[in-house]
Amino acid sequence: MSSSKTVRKLEVVSPVPTDIDIANSVQPFHISEIANELNLNPKHYDLYGKYKAKVLLSVIDELEGSGDGYYVVVGGITPTPLGEGKSTTTVGLCQALGAFLDKKVFTCLRQPSQGPTFGIKGGAAGGGYSQVIPMDEFNLHLTGDIHAITAANNLLAAAIDTRIFHEASQSDKALFNRLCPPNKEGTRTFADVMFRRLKKLGISKNSPIELSPEEVKKFARLDIDPDSITWRRVMDVNDRFLRKIMVGQGPEEKGMVRETGFDISVASEIMAVLALTTSLGDMRERLGRMVIGNSRAGEPVTADDLGIGGALTVLMKDAINPTLMQTLEGTPVLVHAGPFANIAHGNSSIVADKIALKLVGPGGFVITEAGFGADIGTEKFMNIKCRYSGLTPQCAVIVATIRALKMHGGGPEVVAGKPLDHAYLNENVALVEAGCVNLAKHISNTRAYGVHVVVAVNMFSTDSEAELNAVRNAAMAAGAFDAVICTHHAHGGKGAVDLGIAVQKACENQTQPLKFLYPLDISIKEKIEAIAKSYGASGVEYSEQAEKQIEMYSSQGFSGLPICMAKTQYSFSHVPSQKGAPVGFVLPIRDVRASIGAGFIYPLVGTMSTMPGLPTRPCFYDIDVDIATGKVLGLS
Amino acid sequence: MSSSKTVRKLEVVSPVPTDIDIANSVQPFHISEIANELNLNPKHYDLYGKYKAKVLLSVIDELEGSGDGYYVVVGGITPTPLGEGKSTTTVGLCQALGAFLDKKVFTCLRQPSQGPTFGIKGGAAGGGYSQVIPMDEFNLHLTGDIHAITAANNLLAAAIDTRIFHEASQSDKALFNRLCPPNKEGTRTFADVMFRRLKKLGISKNSPIELSPEEVKKFARLDIDPDSITWRRVMDVNDRFLRKIMVGQGPEEKGMVRETGFDISVASEIMAVLALTTSLGDMRERLGRMVIGNSRAGEPVTADDLGIGGALTVLMKDAINPTLMQTLEGTPVLVHAGPFANIAHGNSSIVADKIALKLVGPGGFVITEAGFGADIGTEKFMNIKCRYSGLTPQCAVIVATIRALKMHGGGPEVVAGKPLDHAYLNENVALVEAGCVNLAKHISNTRAYGVHVVVAVNMFSTDSEAELNAVRNAAMAAGAFDAVICTHHAHGGKGAVDLGIAVQKACENQTQPLKFLYPLDISIKEKIEAIAKSYGASGVEYSEQAEKQIEMYSSQGFSGLPICMAKTQYSFSHVPSQKGAPVGFVLPIRDVRASIGAGFIYPLVGTMSTMPGLPTRPCFYDIDVDIATGKVLGLS
Repeated sequence: MSSSKTVRKLEVVSPVPTDIDIANSVQPFHISEIANELNLNPKHYDLYGKYKAKVLLSVIDELEGSGDGYYVVVGGITPTPLGEGKSTTTVGLCQALGAFLDKKVFTCLRQPSQGPTFGIKGGAAGGGYSQVIPMDEFNLHLTGDIHAITAANNLLAAAIDTRIFHEASQSDKALFNRLCPPNKEGTRTFADVMFRRLKKLGISKNSPIELSPEEVKKFARLDIDPDSITWRRVMDVNDRFLRKIMVGQGPEEKGMVRETGFDISVASEIMAVLALTTSLGDMRERLGRMVIGNSRAGEPVTADDLGIGGALTVLMKDAINPTLMQTLEGTPVLVHAGPFANIAHGNSSIVADKIALKLVGPGGFVITEAGFGADIGTEKFMNIKCRYSGLTPQCAVIVATIRALKMHGGGPEVVAGKPLDHAYLNENVALVEAGCVNLAKHISNTRAYGVHVVVAVNMFSTDSEAELNAVRNAAMAAGAFDAVICTHHAHGGKGAVDLGIAVQKACENQTQPLKFLYPLDISIKEKIEAIAKSYGASGVEYSEQAEKQIEMYSSQGFSGLPICMAKTQYSFSHVPSQKGAPVGFVLPIRDVRASIGAGFIYPLVGTMSTMPGLPTRPCFYDIDVDIATGKVLGLS
Repeated sequence: MSSSKTVRKLEVVSPVPTDIDIANSVQPFHISEIANELNLNPKHYDLYGKYKAKVLLSVIDELEGSGDGYYVVVGGITPTPLGEGKSTTTVGLCQALGAFLDKKVFTCLRQPSQGPTFGIKGGAAGGGYSQVIPMDEFNLHLTGDIHAITAANNLLAAAIDTRIFHEASQSDKALFNRLCPPNKEGTRTFADVMFRRLKKLGISKNSPIELSPEEVKKFARLDIDPDSITWRRVMDVNDRFLRKIMVGQGPEEKGMVRETGFDISVASEIMAVLALTTSLGDMRERLGRMVIGNSRAGEPVTADDLGIGGALTVLMKDAINPTLMQTLEGTPVLVHAGPFANIAHGNSSIVADKIALKLVGPGGFVITEAGFGADIGTEKFMNIKCRYSGLTPQCAVIVATIRALKMHGGGPEVVAGKPLDHAYLNENVALVEAGCVNLAKHISNTRAYGVHVVVAVNMFSTDSEAELNAVRNAAMAAGAFDAVICTHHAHGGKGAVDLGIAVQKACENQTQPLKFLYPLDISIKEKIEAIAKSYGASGVEYSEQAEKQIEMYSSQGFSGLPICMAKTQYSFSHVPSQKGAPVGFVLPIRDVRASIGAGFIYPLVGTMSTMPGLPTRPCFYDIDVDIATGKVLGLS
C-alpha cells in the first residue's frame, strides 16, 4: 500500500454505479493536502475553491536542477464510436501506481470542452472507479482557461473586422495619426508592440515623425484581404447555427458584410498555443505571431501587426498555469489545455507535463493521454509535442478493447445509441484474432519512435479468457513489451496493478533516444508523405487548393513547421469504414491550413466539423442543481 | 485610527500618479486576512488565487438572526461624459469609515465588463488613492462570473435555434418520442424539468404514455415564432460586426437563416437575474421563467419550456457567490454582478449587499453604488432592487463635481478626449450656482424615498473655495442632510473623513420607512408616467410599437412587474443636450421590452447601444505582460 497520506481506499460496489454517483460518493481531499504531498507550499499554487488549484509555472524554474520522472503516453487502437476507455485507463493506471505500488505519479489530462457536456456526450473525467474528481468541476468552467481562450480569440476577431472598417474610411495619414497619437507632452510615440511590425517591415526608426509617407502607408495600412481571413470566432457552446454566418449587417457597419463563422472554443489556435507553449515569454511570442490572413499583397498578417499580442497574453496569463485536481484514490492530476485532435494536435499541455515530471522526480511516473487513436494522437505527441518540449517518453501504452478488435476483425458496425450486435457480447475468438492487425499496426508504428509499448486491454464483463489471451498473444507477437488485462473501471487502481508493474518495467528498461518520424527540414509534401506512409498509404493526392496552400506557406517561410494531420480517428485511412489495417490507399489532401503561432501546418483529409450541434433532446434536460445541497444533478 | 489588523497606511504622493502605478505600489493583504477580520473562516469562502475569494451564500443563512448594518446608496448628479467619480467616492468613503473612523464597513461594487477594458475606457476599480486592488484582477476575468453568464446565455440561444430546427423536420409523435426516450427498463418518462411545462399547460399526468395526441402536440411543439425571439447571443468583447448578423447560413442548417445579433455579455438578462436574485432556489426559478419569445399563438415561451432552466442554474451556481476583494487601505469589498444601467437596473447584487449588511452588523456600514445619475440609478435601486430585496437604505449619497454643475449652468459642451473649455478650469461661481438646479432636483427626488441625502462634492484641484461654498449652500437649501467637500482621489480615505462623519450622522438620524415612487399594482402606463413625472416630464407619448407591447405584456400577465426605464444618463429628459432640470417635456416611449426572469419591464426612451465597438487605436496596443514578473502593463 502507498505511503502517501492522501491515498483514499475505495469501497467498490458491483454492478458499477453511474459515474456521477461514484464521484459524489467520495469526499475529496482539500487540494492543499494533495499539493502538500507533492512538496508544494502555498506560494507555489493559487487555490480555486477547495478542490482545484493552479500550479504556478515558477515551479519549473525552482526545480530546474532536479531530475525528471518517467514519461508515459497513453494512446489507443482505432476506436469504435463508443470510445475504448483511454482516459479511464490513464486514470486507472495512475491510481495503481500511486495507491498500490507506492510510486510518485501524476496524471496529465486535457480539459474537456464544456459545450458538449450539455449536448450528447457526458463528461471526460474517466469513468467507473477511475475518475478525476470533483467530476462536475472538471467538466464545467474548471479554472476558466477555456473562457480565457474564448475571450482572447474573439478580441482578436473583433480587432480584425474593426481594423478593416477603419482602414476603409481613413487616409494613410489620418490612420497613422490615430495609431500614434500625441502623448501628454504633445509628442507622437510608437507603442512597444508597434516595434514588432516596424522590424518586420525593415523600418528601424524610433519616432513616428521620422517615417516617410511610404513608410507611414506600409506601417499603418495592413490592407487585409477579407477573403484570406482564416481567423474565426469561437464559443464553448454547441451552436450549429453559428457555423456559417454573415456579420456586419447593421446600418452602422456600412455594408461591410462578410461571411464567417464560429468554431467551438477548443478549436481555437489559442488552445493549441496554450498546449504547446513552454513559458510565459514563449506564449507571448506565439500569440503575437499567429497569422489571421494575408494582406492583398499576399503577406501574412499577424496578431502583433494588429497590435494585440500583448493584450492576448494578458488575457491568457492565468490560463498558462495548469490545474491540480485528484483521482478517486487521491493521486494528483494536472488538467491543462484540450486542443482538437484533428485540426490541432490533441494533447494536453507541455507545461503541465514538465511540472509533473519535476514533481514526481526520478523513479516517479507522469502518465499523459494523447487524443484519438495512436496513429494520430501518439504520432502528434511524438512529432509535435515532444519536438517542442524536448522531452523523451520511455513508454507508450496502447489501450485496446475486445469490442473494437472484433470490429476491426469484420464485426458489424458499432453505432452510438444503438444496442450492440450479439457478435460483441458473445465469445468470438476468430473475430478478435482477425482484428488484431489494427493493434499490431499501432504497436509497430509506436515502437518506431524508440519507446517500449505496453498494451492495456480494458476488460469488459462480456470478454472471455480465450479472447483476452488472443489479444495478449497477438500483441507480444507484434513486438509489445507486455500486454496486460485491466479492470480499473470496475475496481479502480487495484484493477490496473499489473499494468502499473508492466509500465514500470518498460520504463526502467528503456534507453533509446526518441526517433522522430520525419525531420523538420524537408518539404511540406515530404513530411505529409512520411505520415501518410505510416498510415499504410501508398501515396498522397493533393487537391488544387492544397497545392496552392502548400506553395503559399512555403513561400511565406513556414515550411519548416511540423505537420498536424486532420484525419478521421475511425480508420488508419481517410475512410472511416476501412477498419483493420488498410494498405495501398491514396490519401487525399483536400486543403492545407496552418496554425503559425501554435507552430504547425495542418492538411485536411476530409471535412472536419469544428462546431457540434445539439440533438432534439440534449442532455441539459437532465441537469439541475439540488437547491438544498448545491450539488449538481444529472451530469453524466 | 482603525482597530482593524488589515488597515494599510497609504504613502500619498503629489501629483497623483496613474491608477495602475498606485495600485501596483501596494502589496495587497492575502484575502484570507481580510476574511478573518470579518469573522469569516475558510468554510465560508472559496479562494480564487491570493487576493480574491468567493463568499458563499450560506453565510446569509448562518447569520440569519443577527442584525444588519446601515445601508447607503451612492448616486450622482447628471454627469458629464467624463464621469464624476461615483465609484471613486464609494471607495473613498469606505476607506474613510474603515481606516479612519474605526467603523465596520463594506464596499459593494459592480463587476465591470471586460470588453471595454481593451477598447477606449480604462478600468472601473475607482481611481487615484481610492481604488479596489488588485486592479488588473478586478478588470479581467475576476472569478469568472461574466464568463458563466456568457456560457449560459449562449447555451439558451443555441437551444432556441436548434429546437426550431428540429421541430420543423419532425412529426409531433417523433418529436415527443425523442423528448421522452425510454429508460433502461424500456419505460418512457418525463425529465423533472418537463413537469414545469406540463403544469403550465394544465396537464396533470405523470407518464408520457398517458398523454392524448393533442396533449402530445401541445407539450412537444413549442412552435416558436422566429420573428418574436428577443433572446440574443452575447460576448464580453467590443465586437461591432456582431451587432446584426444572419445565422444558419451553412448548408446543414437547410436554409433556416435568421437575423439576430450579439450584445455585450453584461446586457444579458442573466446578468440582471444574478443581480436581483436572493438565493440559489430563487435564481433557479428566475432563470427558468425567462421569456425568449412567443409561440405563434402568442404565448410566452420560457427557458423551462425548452427544458434548460436547471442547466443554466448549474452554469451559474458558482457565479451566485460574490467576490471578496480589498481597497487600497485594506477595507473589504464585495464585487458582484454588473447589469446595464439602461436596459437593466444598473445596480450590483442583492446577495452581496445582504451578506455585507450581516457581516458589518449593527453600527457598521454597507456602501453600494448605483449606476448612471440618481434619476436612473438611485430610482432603480429603490423601486427595483430594494423592492426585491426588502432592504431599506438609511442614507443616499449624491456625488457632484464643480465641472458637471458648471455644465448644467450653461457651460460649453464637455467632450471625452477633447481639452476642457477654460470655463471649467477658472472660477465661475455664477455658472456653478446656475447648475445647482440639477443637484437640487436629484436631492428632492431622492429625499422622496424617505432617506437622508448627503451631497459629496468630489473636489478637483481647479475648484475654488467660493464655488465649493456655492454648492454647499445650494445643497442645504434643497434639503440635503449635509454637503461635504471630499479629496479622496488625492488623499485616500483621509480625504473623505468629513463625508464619513456626515453619512454616519445621517444614518443614525434616519427612522422613516422606504417610500416607493409607485406601487406595483397599477398599470404599466401609470408606472411609466410616475417615473416620467419624477424626471420633470409633463407627459408620456407612446409609439404604436410601445402600445402593442404594453398590451401584449399586460395580457400575458406581466403588468405587475416594476419598470426599468432605458433612458440616457446625460439629462433628466430623453434629450442628452438638455442640461440642468428641464421641465414640461413629453417623454417618448419608442418600444417596450421585458426581462421576465429578472423581473422588470423596460421601456426604451431612444436607442440604446448594447454592443460597443473598438476605436482605430484601441487601448489594447498598450497592454502587455512583463515576462519577468508576470505583472500586467498598460492597463488604465
